[in-house]
Amino acid sequence: MRTVNYEPLTPLLFLERSYRVFENKVAIIGDTFSKTYKEFRQDCYSLAYSLKNVGVGSGDRIAYLSKNSYELLLAHYGVAMLGAILVTLNVRQDEQSINYILKHSGTKILFIEEEFLKESYFANVEKVVILNKINSTHWPQNIESYDCFFKTCKVKSLSWQKNIQDEISTIAINYTTGTTGNPKGVEICHRSVYLNAFCECIQGKLNSQSKFLHVLPMFHCNAWSYAWAVTAIGASHVFLKTTNAKAIVASIINQKITHFCAAPTVLINLMQDPSFQELRNYQGLNIITAGASPCPRIIKTYEDMGVNIIHVFGMTETHGPHLICERQKDWDFASEDELAEIKIRQGVPGIHSVFAKVVDKNMQEVPWDGNTLGEIVMRGNNIMKGYYKDPVATEQSFRNGWFHSGDLAVIHPDGYIEIKGREKDIIISGGENVSIAEVENMLYSHPDIAIASVITIQDEKWGERPHAVIKLKNGAPDLKEDDIINFCREHLAHYKCPAKVTFWDNFPMSNDKVQRELLKQEVEDYYAQK
Amino acid sequence: MRTVNYEPLTPLLFLERSYRVFENKVAIIGDTFSKTYKEFRQDCYSLAYSLKNVGVGSGDRIAYLSKNSYELLLAHYGVAMLGAILVTLNVRQDEQSINYILKHSGTKILFIEEEFLKESYFANVEKVVILNKINSTHWPQNIESYDCFFKTCKVKSLSWQKNIQDEISTIAINYTTGTTGNPKGVEICHRSVYLNAFCECIQGKLNSQSKFLHVLPMFHCNAWSYAWAVTAIGASHVFLKTTNAKAIVASIINQKITHFCAAPTVLINLMQDPSFQELRNYQGLNIITAGASPCPRIIKTYEDMGVNIIHVFGMTETHGPHLICERQKDWDFASEDELAEIKIRQGVPGIHSVFAKVVDKNMQEVPWDGNTLGEIVMRGNNIMKGYYKDPVATEQSFRNGWFHSGDLAVIHPDGYIEIKGREKDIIISGGENVSIAEVENMLYSHPDIAIASVITIQDEKWGERPHAVIKLKNGAPDLKEDDIINFCREHLAHYKCPAKVTFWDNFPMSNDKVQRELLKQEVEDYYAQK
Repeated sequence: MRTVNYEPLTPLLFLERSYRVFENKVAIIGDTFSKTYKEFRQDCYSLAYSLKNVGVGSGDRIAYLSKNSYELLLAHYGVAMLGAILVTLNVRQDEQSINYILKHSGTKILFIEEEFLKESYFANVEKVVILNKINSTHWPQNIESYDCFFKTCKVKSLSWQKNIQDEISTIAINYTTGTTGNPKGVEICHRSVYLNAFCECIQGKLNSQSKFLHVLPMFHCNAWSYAWAVTAIGASHVFLKTTNAKAIVASIINQKITHFCAAPTVLINLMQDPSFQELRNYQGLNIITAGASPCPRIIKTYEDMGVNIIHVFGMTETHGPHLICERQKDWDFASEDELAEIKIRQGVPGIHSVFAKVVDKNMQEVPWDGNTLGEIVMRGNNIMKGYYKDPVATEQSFRNGWFHSGDLAVIHPDGYIEIKGREKDIIISGGENVSIAEVENMLYSHPDIAIASVITIQDEKWGERPHAVIKLKNGAPDLKEDDIINFCREHLAHYKCPAKVTFWDNFPMSNDKVQRELLKQEVEDYYAQK
Repeated sequence: MRTVNYEPLTPLLFLERSYRVFENKVAIIGDTFSKTYKEFRQDCYSLAYSLKNVGVGSGDRIAYLSKNSYELLLAHYGVAMLGAILVTLNVRQDEQSINYILKHSGTKILFIEEEFLKESYFANVEKVVILNKINSTHWPQNIESYDCFFKTCKVKSLSWQKNIQDEISTIAINYTTGTTGNPKGVEICHRSVYLNAFCECIQGKLNSQSKFLHVLPMFHCNAWSYAWAVTAIGASHVFLKTTNAKAIVASIINQKITHFCAAPTVLINLMQDPSFQELRNYQGLNIITAGASPCPRIIKTYEDMGVNIIHVFGMTETHGPHLICERQKDWDFASEDELAEIKIRQGVPGIHSVFAKVVDKNMQEVPWDGNTLGEIVMRGNNIMKGYYKDPVATEQSFRNGWFHSGDLAVIHPDGYIEIKGREKDIIISGGENVSIAEVENMLYSHPDIAIASVITIQDEKWGERPHAVIKLKNGAPDLKEDDIINFCREHLAHYKCPAKVTFWDNFPMSNDKVQRELLKQEVEDYYAQK
């Protein structure tokens, strides 16, 4: 297959190219260490060599349960070099889900930070490697410390090419944190992530002088493919041990960070921290945000600070961004209010993804009226190969030749797609569709609200109505239910406004998102007990 | 082949994406017209529709003999939409070569500007379409004007996807203007140009606000792939009817041009024109240069004006850039003289091309010493499919699994490749290799020399020695042979310096390059007659 004029597309080529061109340039900046591209590549080779030493080969699944770290980044290359498959696990997932994934994926070796290790994991893997030193002595025998496991590979060049003959072979399985049912394993191939990375270099405006801070956990779609894109362009990966707001701000300033990715919730936390003000005179920061619709207030706050917000949309199944809210020249003439509305749209297909539309039940595109709801469907080289060992779910999600997102959206007259929520995130009130996201966005635009979530309550007359659950900011005035409802009535059609407002302190969170179903349960229990 | 998660890579996707995202943005700026992306795409569809109407189908060869024009750009899309193959012809080629190419390629339709048409072409094609109105009445019958040929396609979307099922299918054949033997047809596939265009968006730092001036003829590797790259990013193509220095400068200023491609000779012509000084306060211009080694003086002159020079290297067989003189951070600390030396190097592999080395006769990489000569060999997705209908030449150039460039080069300790010339461009003097390019570069660094070419003379003692043939600038002081030789001796090892200097007025040129072999003949004749 590999010939003088055909090279399977794989992100491993990026590592070789950046090594070739930027051998002595800093590739990695950690809290207490740094690595050149030469050292980074050598470490990737050493990981591959160490894995091979214990019998790992093509197609084997290797799992990591770890916060962001250099070791986790290495896995994105070292595992792939053997034609093996990386399974990054969400550190916030529960023991049962982790065991399900280890078993379902057939993981051979689990690399893990000791703080996340449970005795039950041993039964589902051949070997456990602790990413730091082992503190406890009570673990079973099939355990090793990373230091012992990791053998330095002496060869200058490892012929990984022979292990990747086909660009469609799987490089990673990313398990979705499904709110219903078991997690599904999203299989992604070398070709997809290669093209994603190329697109991200362009859309993220990366260059070889960029410094990318790993805020977004790599267990979210391999940092939305940036685990590879940053290497592609020869930029520097920057790691933090702790990722609280203060540490992020300090790193931005001290390391002259140019890029990071983060979900809107992380951006909210950051901007509510006093240290955020230190960024006021900072130049050249680009933040790629996705994972939920950012409310206009977030975008405006950051842009007022001089930050360039790149708003994209993707899913685990599209392996990172499929849509981008691409800036148009005529936006230069839009008012601030108009811009705030426009910039929260998920946007248009990316350079590499090309095809996305909003369709009705019969796969007919809905009118571009900014009003008619439909489902977003997508196609392209970035779409997953399928759900691992789940042909039925794969077939279902690929029906009619398109990947079905399950996300409900409208399409505006300018062709920009705006998500209104998942199918279950729509409240049907008096026959009208009310988007929970739209109401939440409006609540977030209130200057005194820190967290807002909208749940559904049953209503005899209207069927369903919105119920706002909110948390006020520290030091906010003592607002009442009516204040909130009146605020909404000023900006939304009345049928979209909350019928009820509850002030709440402890929101159940997962992956920095409010777990709305859980919150609904807790709020209902609270009222039942009252 | 095409599925929900597999889309053959083709630059036609770029057109669809930019239409989807930038429908009403200006795609094309001509002298007297402009087109939005919607109109541009529609015109591409209309060309495809018109070609289909006359029976053009998958695999057919369609030739264009034309200076740069909007119609020629359309051909890069409209022809490809049918799965047909574009053959762009060099307007400076002689009648015999054109006939050879038309015959060898089996061209079905020839699109041509009337000024280039010869009666003999009719015998080799089914149909001739004149790109402007037909002035002469003496042509044979199988001729049509473009206006009559071009039918507007009414459909909003043309299902070109069915015609391109395989990304490895041929999109273009570019004939080399070989100095020896017949031209060879370089076959390039959809996948190659897709990846090239992606890489060029990154390396050329294009964005959707960029304005690309078509200075480089599109018959040179489809404008080194920029015919597609500019569309990929949603930037604007800008066309000029005349491409003299004055017109180029005026267009840069009036249209706010951000990018163009040009060979060093074009850059020399431009900088010697009085209008060049008007660019003194111009900001944001990027020039991609290749096609010959630019001498340090060219790069410095442009950079002193605030122009960003992007120096790349490629061949017809690599379809545009394979190497780029990628800027390193530590160059910030280099002296002007050091930089001048560094920036003329062809550099390192591009993000998408990855593999290039300099090898000896046994395919062993030469030491990275900046001194040992070897041949540049390359591999990657941008390498041609092969020479059309010439399996012997293809096999020869692909021997040992690498494409053999025939270019001699050294590799510096920092890994940067520097071309010293073709095999025939090396003078062996007293057993030492003298690079003609190196001596020519030194001559060009003399402030009074307008054109310099170095030919070989036989020498009883040394075997061969360099002979400089030069033209002084208008208004230059009356320099003598010794002045030139002494200048060279100050900067070059003595054995590299010209043994003889001849002042010459009319240099034979082709594609803006001095035709050294022809010049050698003329100079020898001159001395023989004396």
